[in-house]
Amino acid sequence: MHGYDRRANARLQDQHDALVDLLHHDTRYPDGSLVLEAGCGTGAQTDTLTRNSPRARFVSIDISARSLAAAQEKVRAANVQFQQADVFALPFAPGSFDHVFVCFLLEHLPRPLAALERLKAMLKPGGTITVIEGDHGSTYFHPDSAAAYDAIRCQVELQRRSGGNANIGRELYPLVTQAGFDAVRVSPRMVYVDSSRPHLVEMFTRRTFTAMIEGVREDALKAGLISAERFDEGIRALSRTADTDGVFCYTFFKGTGTRPK
Amino acid sequence: MHGYDRRANARLQDQHDALVDLLHHDTRYPDGSLVLEAGCGTGAQTDTLTRNSPRARFVSIDISARSLAAAQEKVRAANVQFQQADVFALPFAPGSFDHVFVCFLLEHLPRPLAALERLKAMLKPGGTITVIEGDHGSTYFHPDSAAAYDAIRCQVELQRRSGGNANIGRELYPLVTQAGFDAVRVSPRMVYVDSSRPHLVEMFTRRTFTAMIEGVREDALKAGLISAERFDEGIRALSRTADTDGVFCYTFFKGTGTRPK
Repeated sequence: MHGYDRRANARLQDQHDALVDLLHHDTRYPDGSLVLEAGCGTGAQTDTLTRNSPRARFVSIDISARSLAAAQEKVRAANVQFQQADVFALPFAPGSFDHVFVCFLLEHLPRPLAALERLKAMLKPGGTITVIEGDHGSTYFHPDSAAAYDAIRCQVELQRRSGGNANIGRELYPLVTQAGFDAVRVSPRMVYVDSSRPHLVEMFTRRTFTAMIEGVREDALKAGLISAERFDEGIRALSRTADTDGVFCYTFFKGTGTRPK
Repeated sequence: MHGYDRRANARLQDQHDALVDLLHHDTRYPDGSLVLEAGCGTGAQTDTLTRNSPRARFVSIDISARSLAAAQEKVRAANVQFQQADVFALPFAPGSFDHVFVCFLLEHLPRPLAALERLKAMLKPGGTITVIEGDHGSTYFHPDSAAAYDAIRCQVELQRRSGGNANIGRELYPLVTQAGFDAVRVSPRMVYVDSSRPHLVEMFTRRTFTAMIEGVREDALKAGLISAERFDEGIRALSRTADTDGVFCYTFFKGTGTRPK
Protein backbone atom coordinates (compact mmCIF):
# COMPACT_ATOMS: atom_id res chain seq x y z
CA MET A 1 0.00 0.00 0.00
CA HIS A 2 2.71 2.39 1.02
CA GLY A 3 4.80 1.28 -1.96
CA TYR A 4 1.85 1.89 -4.24
CA ASP A 5 1.26 5.34 -2.77
CA ARG A 6 4.87 6.23 -3.30
CA ARG A 7 4.69 5.14 -6.95
CA ALA A 8 1.41 7.02 -7.42
CA ASN A 9 2.91 10.13 -5.86
CA ALA A 10 5.94 9.85 -8.11
CA ARG A 11 3.66 9.72 -11.15
CA LEU A 12 1.67 12.71 -9.91
CA GLN A 13 4.96 14.54 -9.43
CA ASP A 14 5.90 13.67 -13.04
CA GLN A 15 2.65 15.15 -14.31
CA HIS A 16 3.16 18.25 -12.21
CA ASP A 17 6.65 18.45 -13.69
CA ALA A 18 5.15 18.13 -17.18
CA LEU A 19 2.95 21.19 -16.54
CA VAL A 20 5.84 23.14 -15.03
CA ASP A 21 7.95 22.19 -18.01
CA LEU A 22 5.24 23.28 -20.47
CA LEU A 23 5.23 26.78 -18.97
CA HIS A 24 8.81 27.29 -17.81
CA HIS A 25 11.25 25.10 -19.78
CA ASP A 26 12.32 27.96 -22.05
CA THR A 27 12.95 30.53 -19.31
CA ARG A 28 16.64 30.45 -18.32
CA TYR A 29 18.49 33.56 -17.18
CA PRO A 30 22.23 34.15 -17.67
CA ASP A 31 24.67 33.75 -14.79
CA GLY A 32 24.88 36.89 -12.71
CA SER A 33 21.78 38.55 -14.11
CA LEU A 34 19.32 40.26 -11.77
CA VAL A 35 15.67 39.28 -12.21
CA LEU A 36 12.55 40.89 -10.75
CA GLU A 37 9.70 38.43 -10.18
CA ALA A 38 6.58 40.56 -9.79
CA GLY A 39 3.64 38.99 -7.95
CA CYS A 40 5.38 35.86 -6.67
CA GLY A 41 2.45 34.97 -4.40
CA THR A 42 3.30 31.92 -2.31
CA GLY A 43 6.34 31.14 -4.45
CA ALA A 44 4.71 28.57 -6.76
CA GLN A 45 6.90 29.72 -9.68
CA THR A 46 9.86 31.01 -7.66
CA ASP A 47 10.97 27.50 -6.90
CA THR A 48 11.14 26.60 -10.59
CA LEU A 49 12.66 29.94 -11.59
CA THR A 50 15.53 29.74 -9.10
CA ARG A 51 16.23 26.10 -9.94
CA ASN A 52 16.30 26.72 -13.71
CA SER A 53 18.69 29.66 -13.36
CA PRO A 54 20.77 28.81 -10.28
CA ARG A 55 23.38 31.50 -11.00
CA ALA A 56 20.95 34.35 -11.64
CA ARG A 57 19.76 36.41 -8.68
CA PHE A 58 16.05 36.96 -8.07
CA VAL A 59 14.12 39.64 -6.22
CA SER A 60 10.60 38.24 -5.77
CA ILE A 61 7.95 40.71 -4.69
CA ASP A 62 4.33 40.43 -3.68
CA ILE A 63 1.84 42.86 -2.20
CA SER A 64 0.69 40.33 0.44
CA ALA A 65 2.89 39.82 3.50
CA ARG A 66 1.05 36.58 4.20
CA SER A 67 1.80 35.14 0.76
CA LEU A 68 5.43 36.19 1.10
CA ALA A 69 5.71 34.38 4.44
CA ALA A 70 4.43 31.21 2.77
CA ALA A 71 6.85 31.72 -0.13
CA GLN A 72 9.78 32.18 2.25
CA GLU A 73 8.77 28.97 4.04
CA LYS A 74 8.53 27.02 0.77
CA VAL A 75 11.45 28.31 -1.30
CA ARG A 76 14.83 27.49 0.22
CA ALA A 77 16.94 28.67 -2.71
CA ALA A 78 19.94 30.86 -1.87
CA ASN A 79 19.59 33.04 -4.98
CA VAL A 80 16.29 34.73 -4.12
CA GLN A 81 15.37 37.63 -1.89
CA PHE A 82 11.69 38.17 -1.03
CA GLN A 83 10.36 41.67 -0.52
CA GLN A 84 6.93 43.15 0.09
CA ALA A 85 6.06 45.65 -2.64
CA ASP A 86 3.26 46.94 -4.86
CA VAL A 87 3.75 46.79 -8.63
CA PHE A 88 2.37 50.33 -8.77
CA ALA A 89 4.83 51.67 -6.17
CA LEU A 90 8.04 49.80 -6.79
CA PRO A 91 10.85 50.55 -4.32
CA PHE A 92 13.64 50.17 -6.91
CA ALA A 93 15.53 52.64 -9.05
CA PRO A 94 14.50 52.71 -12.73
CA GLY A 95 16.65 50.42 -14.86
CA SER A 96 17.71 48.23 -11.92
CA PHE A 97 16.95 44.84 -13.45
CA ASP A 98 18.20 42.75 -16.35
CA HIS A 99 14.91 40.84 -16.62
CA VAL A 100 11.36 40.89 -15.32
CA PHE A 101 9.20 37.80 -14.84
CA VAL A 102 5.42 37.91 -14.31
CA CYS A 103 3.18 34.85 -13.91
CA PHE A 104 -0.55 34.82 -13.08
CA LEU A 105 -0.42 38.45 -11.93
CA LEU A 106 -1.97 40.54 -14.73
CA GLU A 107 -5.22 38.53 -14.54
CA HIS A 108 -5.84 40.12 -11.11
CA LEU A 109 -5.04 43.74 -11.97
CA PRO A 110 -7.57 46.40 -13.05
CA ARG A 111 -4.83 48.12 -15.09
CA PRO A 112 -2.60 45.44 -16.59
CA LEU A 113 -1.21 47.78 -19.25
CA ALA A 114 -0.13 50.34 -16.64
CA ALA A 115 1.50 47.53 -14.63
CA LEU A 116 3.52 46.44 -17.67
CA GLU A 117 4.64 50.04 -18.21
CA ARG A 118 5.80 50.30 -14.58
CA LEU A 119 7.67 47.02 -14.89
CA LYS A 120 9.28 48.16 -18.15
CA ALA A 121 10.73 51.16 -16.31
CA MET A 122 12.49 48.75 -13.92
CA LEU A 123 14.39 47.16 -16.82
CA LYS A 124 17.74 48.17 -18.22
CA PRO A 125 17.50 49.07 -21.93
CA GLY A 126 17.65 45.76 -23.81
CA GLY A 127 16.29 43.87 -20.81
CA THR A 128 13.45 41.39 -21.28
CA ILE A 129 10.05 40.75 -19.77
CA THR A 130 8.39 37.33 -19.64
CA VAL A 131 4.66 37.12 -18.95
CA ILE A 132 2.60 33.97 -18.39
CA GLU A 133 -1.19 34.04 -18.00
CA GLY A 134 -4.06 31.58 -18.32
CA ASP A 135 -7.30 32.10 -20.25
CA HIS A 136 -10.48 30.52 -18.92
CA GLY A 137 -12.22 31.21 -22.23
CA SER A 138 -9.82 28.72 -23.81
CA THR A 139 -11.55 25.90 -21.91
CA TYR A 140 -13.51 23.25 -23.79
CA PHE A 141 -14.11 19.58 -23.23
CA HIS A 142 -15.92 16.38 -24.11
CA PRO A 143 -18.67 15.58 -23.35
CA ASP A 144 -19.74 19.14 -24.03
CA SER A 145 -22.00 20.87 -21.47
CA ALA A 146 -23.67 24.27 -21.42
CA ALA A 147 -24.02 23.99 -17.62
CA ALA A 148 -20.26 23.60 -17.25
CA TYR A 149 -19.66 26.79 -19.27
CA ASP A 150 -22.23 28.57 -17.07
CA ALA A 151 -20.30 27.53 -13.95
CA ILE A 152 -16.99 28.65 -15.51
CA ARG A 153 -18.55 31.97 -16.45
CA CYS A 154 -19.35 32.55 -12.75
CA GLN A 155 -15.62 32.43 -11.97
CA VAL A 156 -14.86 34.78 -14.88
CA GLU A 157 -17.59 37.21 -13.79
CA LEU A 158 -16.49 37.23 -10.13
CA GLN A 159 -12.90 37.90 -11.19
CA ARG A 160 -14.14 40.72 -13.42
CA ARG A 161 -16.08 42.25 -10.53
CA SER A 162 -12.97 42.28 -8.39
CA GLY A 163 -11.15 44.13 -11.17
CA GLY A 164 -9.45 41.22 -12.92
CA ASN A 165 -9.70 39.40 -16.25
CA ALA A 166 -9.68 35.59 -16.25
CA ASN A 167 -9.49 35.58 -20.06
CA ILE A 168 -6.40 37.77 -20.31
CA GLY A 169 -4.09 35.13 -21.83
CA ARG A 170 -5.21 35.79 -25.40
CA GLU A 171 -4.49 39.53 -24.92
CA LEU A 172 -0.81 39.23 -24.09
CA TYR A 173 0.39 40.21 -27.54
CA PRO A 174 -1.47 43.53 -27.73
CA LEU A 175 -0.79 44.30 -24.04
CA VAL A 176 2.96 43.74 -24.15
CA THR A 177 3.17 45.55 -27.49
CA GLN A 178 1.14 48.54 -26.27
CA ALA A 179 3.32 48.76 -23.16
CA GLY A 180 6.17 49.68 -25.50
CA PHE A 181 8.21 46.49 -25.65
CA ASP A 182 10.02 45.44 -28.82
CA ALA A 183 10.30 42.02 -30.46
CA VAL A 184 7.17 40.76 -28.76
CA ARG A 185 6.52 37.05 -29.23
CA VAL A 186 3.63 35.12 -27.72
CA SER A 187 3.25 31.36 -27.76
CA PRO A 188 0.27 29.35 -26.54
CA ARG A 189 0.90 26.47 -24.13
CA MET A 190 -2.04 24.13 -24.46
CA VAL A 191 -2.83 21.50 -21.85
CA TYR A 192 -4.59 18.61 -23.57
CA VAL A 193 -5.94 15.88 -21.28
CA ASP A 194 -7.45 12.54 -22.22
CA SER A 195 -7.47 9.23 -20.34
CA SER A 196 -4.17 8.12 -21.88
CA ARG A 197 -2.72 10.72 -19.45
CA PRO A 198 -4.45 9.56 -16.24
CA HIS A 199 -2.37 11.61 -13.84
CA LEU A 200 -2.96 14.80 -15.80
CA VAL A 201 -6.67 13.98 -15.53
CA GLU A 202 -6.22 13.88 -11.77
CA MET A 203 -3.79 16.80 -11.40
CA PHE A 204 -5.17 19.22 -13.94
CA THR A 205 -8.79 18.45 -14.85
CA ARG A 206 -9.89 17.43 -11.35
CA ARG A 207 -7.57 18.99 -8.79
CA THR A 208 -6.69 22.20 -10.62
CA PHE A 209 -9.44 23.37 -12.94
CA THR A 210 -12.61 21.73 -11.62
CA ALA A 211 -11.55 22.39 -8.01
CA MET A 212 -10.93 26.06 -8.84
CA ILE A 213 -14.40 26.49 -10.36
CA GLU A 214 -15.98 24.54 -7.49
CA GLY A 215 -14.24 26.97 -5.14
CA VAL A 216 -16.35 29.94 -6.27
CA ARG A 217 -19.68 28.17 -5.56
CA GLU A 218 -20.57 30.16 -2.47
CA ASP A 219 -19.60 33.54 -3.94
CA ALA A 220 -21.43 32.80 -7.21
CA LEU A 221 -24.64 31.87 -5.38
CA LYS A 222 -24.34 34.84 -3.02
CA ALA A 223 -23.92 37.15 -6.03
CA GLY A 224 -26.99 35.62 -7.66
CA LEU A 225 -25.03 34.68 -10.78
CA ILE A 226 -26.49 31.18 -11.05
CA SER A 227 -28.80 28.75 -9.26
CA ALA A 228 -27.32 26.09 -6.99
CA GLU A 229 -28.80 23.36 -9.21
CA ARG A 230 -27.27 24.75 -12.39
CA PHE A 231 -23.88 25.32 -10.77
CA ASP A 232 -23.78 21.80 -9.37
CA GLU A 233 -24.84 20.41 -12.75
CA GLY A 234 -21.90 22.30 -14.26
CA ILE A 235 -19.46 20.86 -11.74
CA ARG A 236 -20.78 17.35 -12.38
CA ALA A 237 -20.29 17.92 -16.11
CA LEU A 238 -16.71 19.10 -15.54
CA SER A 239 -16.03 16.04 -13.41
CA ARG A 240 -17.56 13.91 -16.17
CA THR A 241 -14.84 15.08 -18.57
CA ALA A 242 -12.36 13.25 -16.31
CA ASP A 243 -13.98 9.87 -17.12
CA THR A 244 -12.36 7.34 -19.44
CA ASP A 245 -13.95 8.77 -22.60
CA GLY A 246 -13.59 12.41 -21.55
CA VAL A 247 -11.28 15.12 -22.90
CA PHE A 248 -10.29 18.45 -21.37
CA CYS A 249 -8.48 21.38 -23.03
CA TYR A 250 -7.03 24.57 -21.54
CA THR A 251 -4.45 27.02 -22.85
CA PHE A 252 -1.90 29.21 -21.11
CA PHE A 253 -0.09 31.97 -22.99
CA LYS A 254 3.54 33.00 -22.62
CA GLY A 255 4.83 36.27 -24.00
CA THR A 256 8.25 37.89 -24.13
CA GLY A 257 9.39 41.38 -25.08
CA THR A 258 12.46 43.58 -24.90
CA ARG A 259 12.79 47.10 -23.51
CA PRO A 260 13.97 49.25 -26.42
CA LYS A 261 17.58 50.46 -26.19
CA MET B 1 4.12 45.85 -58.70
CA HIS B 2 4.53 42.42 -60.19
CA GLY B 3 7.71 41.91 -58.18
CA TYR B 4 5.90 42.90 -55.04
CA ASP B 5 3.08 40.49 -55.83
CA ARG B 6 5.52 37.68 -56.35
CA ARG B 7 7.19 38.37 -52.98
CA ALA B 8 3.79 38.63 -51.29
CA ASN B 9 2.70 35.37 -52.87
CA ALA B 10 5.90 33.69 -51.73
CA ARG B 11 5.21 34.82 -48.16
CA LEU B 12 1.63 33.60 -48.37
CA GLN B 13 2.94 30.28 -49.63
CA ASP B 14 5.29 30.13 -46.62
CA GLN B 15 2.40 30.65 -44.25
CA HIS B 16 0.37 28.02 -46.08
CA ASP B 17 3.39 25.73 -45.71
CA ALA B 18 3.51 26.51 -41.99
CA LEU B 19 -0.09 25.31 -41.60
CA VAL B 20 0.53 22.23 -43.73
CA ASP B 21 3.60 21.51 -41.64
CA LEU B 22 1.67 21.92 -38.38
CA LEU B 23 -0.78 19.21 -39.44
CA HIS B 24 1.32 16.88 -41.58
CA HIS B 25 5.02 17.08 -40.69
CA ASP B 26 4.91 13.92 -38.57
CA THR B 27 3.11 11.74 -41.11
CA ARG B 28 5.66 9.80 -43.18
CA TYR B 29 4.96 6.32 -44.53
CA PRO B 30 7.63 3.68 -45.15
CA ASP B 31 8.84 2.90 -48.66
CA GLY B 32 6.58 0.44 -50.40
CA SER B 33 3.69 0.69 -47.94
CA LEU B 34 0.13 0.91 -49.24
CA VAL B 35 -1.96 3.75 -47.79
CA LEU B 36 -5.72 4.34 -48.07
CA GLU B 37 -6.67 8.02 -47.97
CA ALA B 38 -10.38 8.09 -47.17
CA GLY B 39 -12.30 11.21 -48.17
CA CYS B 40 -9.60 12.90 -50.22
CA GLY B 41 -12.02 15.53 -51.56
CA THR B 42 -10.29 17.75 -54.11
CA GLY B 43 -6.87 16.46 -53.07
CA ALA B 44 -5.95 19.25 -50.65
CA GLN B 45 -4.03 16.79 -48.43
CA THR B 46 -3.13 14.26 -51.13
CA ASP B 47 -0.51 16.56 -52.55
CA THR B 48 1.27 16.83 -49.19
CA LEU B 49 0.86 13.13 -48.39
CA THR B 50 2.37 11.92 -51.63
CA ARG B 51 5.23 14.42 -51.43
CA ASN B 52 6.10 13.50 -47.81
CA SER B 53 6.15 9.77 -48.60
CA PRO B 54 7.28 9.59 -52.22
CA ARG B 55 7.96 5.84 -52.08
CA ALA B 56 4.69 4.84 -50.45
CA ARG B 57 1.69 4.12 -52.70
CA PHE B 58 -1.64 5.83 -52.07
CA VAL B 59 -5.20 4.91 -52.95
CA SER B 60 -7.23 8.09 -52.44
CA ILE B 61 -10.99 7.68 -52.39
CA ASP B 62 -13.91 10.07 -52.28
CA ILE B 63 -17.66 9.64 -52.66
CA SER B 64 -17.90 12.62 -55.05
CA ALA B 65 -16.90 12.10 -58.70
CA ARG B 66 -16.68 15.87 -59.09
CA SER B 67 -14.21 16.29 -56.21
CA LEU B 68 -12.15 13.39 -57.56
CA ALA B 69 -11.95 15.04 -60.97
CA ALA B 70 -10.60 18.20 -59.30
CA ALA B 71 -8.14 16.11 -57.27
CA GLN B 72 -6.90 14.32 -60.36
CA GLU B 73 -6.40 17.68 -62.06
CA LYS B 74 -4.47 19.10 -59.09
CA VAL B 75 -2.33 16.20 -57.91
CA ARG B 76 0.25 15.09 -60.44
CA ALA B 77 2.10 12.62 -58.21
CA ALA B 78 2.88 9.22 -59.73
CA ASN B 79 2.34 7.33 -56.45
CA VAL B 80 -1.41 7.91 -56.10
CA GLN B 81 -4.45 6.28 -57.65
CA PHE B 82 -7.82 8.00 -57.29
CA GLN B 83 -10.98 5.95 -57.00
CA GLN B 84 -14.64 6.75 -56.37
CA ALA B 85 -15.87 4.92 -53.27
CA ASP B 86 -18.07 5.24 -50.19
CA VAL B 87 -16.43 4.72 -46.78
CA PHE B 88 -19.45 2.58 -45.86
CA ALA B 89 -19.14 0.35 -48.96
CA LEU B 90 -15.43 0.01 -49.54
CA PRO B 91 -14.48 -1.94 -52.68
CA PHE B 92 -11.35 -3.50 -51.12
CA ALA B 93 -10.63 -6.82 -49.42
CA PRO B 94 -10.33 -6.62 -45.63
CA GLY B 95 -6.72 -6.20 -44.49
CA SER B 96 -5.58 -4.71 -47.82
CA PHE B 97 -3.76 -1.66 -46.48
CA ASP B 98 -0.73 -0.94 -44.31
CA HIS B 99 -2.08 2.46 -43.23
CA VAL B 100 -5.22 4.56 -43.38
CA PHE B 101 -5.26 8.37 -43.46
CA VAL B 102 -8.37 10.47 -42.80
CA CYS B 103 -8.47 14.27 -42.79
CA PHE B 104 -11.56 16.49 -42.43
CA LEU B 105 -13.88 13.57 -43.19
CA LEU B 106 -15.40 12.46 -39.86
CA GLU B 107 -16.80 15.97 -39.25
CA HIS B 108 -19.23 15.36 -42.14
CA LEU B 109 -20.41 11.84 -41.22
CA PRO B 110 -23.52 11.00 -39.15
CA ARG B 111 -21.77 7.82 -37.91
CA PRO B 112 -18.08 8.63 -37.43
CA LEU B 113 -17.52 5.66 -35.11
CA ALA B 114 -18.94 3.21 -37.66
CA ALA B 115 -16.74 4.80 -40.34
CA LEU B 116 -13.64 4.25 -38.19
CA GLU B 117 -14.66 0.61 -37.67
CA ARG B 118 -15.04 0.09 -41.44
CA LEU B 119 -11.66 1.68 -42.04
CA LYS B 120 -10.07 -0.48 -39.33
CA ALA B 121 -11.22 -3.57 -41.23
CA MET B 122 -9.24 -2.37 -44.26
CA LEU B 123 -6.00 -2.44 -42.26
CA LYS B 124 -3.59 -5.30 -41.86
CA PRO B 125 -3.13 -6.26 -38.20
CA GLY B 126 -0.56 -3.83 -36.80
CA GLY B 127 -1.46 -1.22 -39.41
CA THR B 128 -2.05 2.38 -38.34
CA ILE B 129 -4.77 4.96 -38.76
CA THR B 130 -4.14 8.71 -38.72
CA VAL B 131 -7.09 11.08 -38.27
CA ILE B 132 -7.05 14.89 -38.46
CA GLU B 133 -10.11 17.00 -37.66
CA GLY B 134 -10.81 20.62 -36.72
CA ASP B 135 -12.98 21.85 -33.85
CA HIS B 136 -14.92 25.07 -34.28
CA GLY B 137 -15.62 25.15 -30.54
CA SER B 138 -11.89 25.68 -30.04
CA THR B 139 -12.19 29.16 -31.56
CA TYR B 140 -11.60 32.25 -29.45
CA PHE B 141 -10.16 35.65 -30.16
CA HIS B 142 -9.45 39.19 -29.08
CA PRO B 143 -11.32 41.48 -29.03
CA ASP B 144 -13.95 39.11 -27.71
CA SER B 145 -17.43 39.25 -29.26
CA ALA B 146 -20.66 37.42 -28.45
CA ALA B 147 -21.94 38.22 -31.97
CA ALA B 148 -18.96 36.43 -33.52
CA TYR B 149 -19.69 33.30 -31.48
CA ASP B 150 -23.34 33.52 -32.59
CA ALA B 151 -22.24 33.59 -36.24
CA ILE B 152 -19.88 30.64 -35.68
CA ARG B 153 -22.67 28.71 -33.97
CA CYS B 154 -24.73 29.05 -37.17
CA GLN B 155 -22.08 27.12 -39.07
CA VAL B 156 -21.93 24.48 -36.32
CA GLU B 157 -25.73 24.14 -36.26
CA LEU B 158 -26.04 23.87 -40.06
CA GLN B 159 -23.35 21.18 -40.12
CA ARG B 160 -25.19 19.36 -37.32
CA ARG B 161 -28.44 19.50 -39.31
CA SER B 162 -26.75 17.91 -42.29
CA GLY B 163 -25.56 15.09 -40.03
CA GLY B 164 -22.06 16.32 -39.20
CA ASN B 165 -20.19 17.63 -36.16
CA ALA B 166 -18.02 20.73 -36.56
CA ASN B 167 -16.69 20.26 -33.00
CA ILE B 168 -15.49 16.68 -33.50
CA GLY B 169 -11.77 17.38 -33.04
CA ARG B 170 -11.88 17.13 -29.25
CA GLU B 171 -13.61 13.73 -29.56
CA LEU B 172 -10.88 11.96 -31.51
CA TYR B 173 -9.44 10.12 -28.52
CA PRO B 174 -12.70 8.45 -27.42
CA LEU B 175 -13.75 7.79 -31.04
CA VAL B 176 -10.54 6.11 -32.15
CA THR B 177 -10.38 4.19 -28.86
CA GLN B 178 -14.00 3.02 -29.09
CA ALA B 179 -13.43 1.91 -32.70
CA GLY B 180 -11.04 -0.69 -31.27
CA PHE B 181 -7.63 0.74 -32.07
CA ASP B 182 -4.67 0.27 -29.72
CA ALA B 183 -2.01 2.73 -28.61
CA VAL B 184 -4.21 5.72 -29.39
CA ARG B 185 -2.46 9.07 -29.11
CA VAL B 186 -4.04 12.43 -29.83
CA SER B 187 -2.19 15.72 -30.06
CA PRO B 188 -3.69 19.17 -30.49
CA ARG B 189 -2.33 21.42 -33.25
CA MET B 190 -3.13 24.95 -32.27
CA VAL B 191 -3.06 27.82 -34.76
CA TYR B 192 -2.23 31.01 -32.88
CA VAL B 193 -2.43 34.22 -34.89
CA ASP B 194 -1.37 37.73 -33.87
CA SER B 195 -0.10 40.60 -35.97
CA SER B 196 3.53 39.50 -35.64
CA ARG B 197 2.42 36.80 -38.12
CA PRO B 198 0.76 39.02 -40.75
CA HIS B 199 0.44 36.42 -43.43
CA LEU B 200 -1.22 33.95 -41.09
CA VAL B 201 -3.67 36.77 -40.30
CA GLU B 202 -4.41 36.96 -44.00
CA MET B 203 -4.35 33.25 -44.83
CA PHE B 204 -5.99 31.79 -41.74
CA THR B 205 -8.03 34.38 -39.84
CA ARG B 206 -9.36 36.18 -42.92
CA ARG B 207 -9.27 33.85 -45.90
CA THR B 208 -9.87 30.54 -44.14
CA PHE B 209 -11.91 30.92 -40.96
CA THR B 210 -13.80 34.19 -41.40
CA ALA B 211 -14.48 33.41 -45.07
CA MET B 212 -15.85 29.98 -44.11
CA ILE B 213 -18.27 31.45 -41.57
CA GLU B 214 -19.24 34.22 -43.99
CA GLY B 215 -20.03 31.48 -46.50
CA VAL B 216 -22.99 30.14 -44.50
CA ARG B 217 -24.74 33.54 -44.30
CA GLU B 218 -27.51 32.73 -46.77
CA ASP B 219 -28.24 29.27 -45.33
CA ALA B 220 -28.20 30.58 -41.75
CA LEU B 221 -30.67 33.35 -42.58
CA LYS B 222 -32.87 30.99 -44.61
CA ALA B 223 -32.94 28.56 -41.66
CA GLY B 224 -33.91 31.40 -39.31
CA LEU B 225 -30.92 30.75 -37.06
CA ILE B 226 -29.93 34.41 -36.72
CA SER B 227 -30.88 37.90 -37.92
CA ALA B 228 -28.95 39.43 -40.80
CA GLU B 229 -27.86 42.29 -38.51
CA ARG B 230 -26.48 39.98 -35.84
CA PHE B 231 -24.72 37.73 -38.37
CA ASP B 232 -23.08 40.71 -40.07
CA GLU B 233 -22.05 42.09 -36.68
CA GLY B 234 -20.41 38.74 -35.97
CA ILE B 235 -18.51 38.78 -39.25
CA ARG B 236 -17.32 42.34 -38.59
CA ALA B 237 -16.13 41.21 -35.15
CA LEU B 238 -14.24 38.27 -36.67
CA SER B 239 -12.64 40.61 -39.22
CA ARG B 240 -11.77 42.94 -36.35
CA THR B 241 -9.59 40.19 -34.80
CA ALA B 242 -7.36 40.52 -37.87
CA ASP B 243 -6.43 44.10 -36.94
CA THR B 244 -3.04 45.04 -35.49
CA ASP B 245 -4.10 44.45 -31.87
CA GLY B 246 -6.21 41.38 -32.63
CA VAL B 247 -5.55 37.72 -31.79
CA PHE B 248 -7.17 34.59 -33.22
CA CYS B 249 -6.95 31.00 -31.92
CA TYR B 250 -8.10 27.72 -33.46
CA THR B 251 -7.11 24.13 -32.76
CA PHE B 252 -6.95 21.06 -34.98
CA PHE B 253 -6.56 17.58 -33.49
CA LYS B 254 -4.48 14.72 -34.84
CA GLY B 255 -4.93 11.18 -33.61
CA THR B 256 -3.18 7.90 -34.39
CA GLY B 257 -4.00 4.31 -33.49
CA THR B 258 -2.95 0.78 -34.38
CA ARG B 259 -5.13 -2.14 -35.45
CA PRO B 260 -4.56 -4.86 -32.84
CA LYS B 261 -2.54 -7.88 -34.06
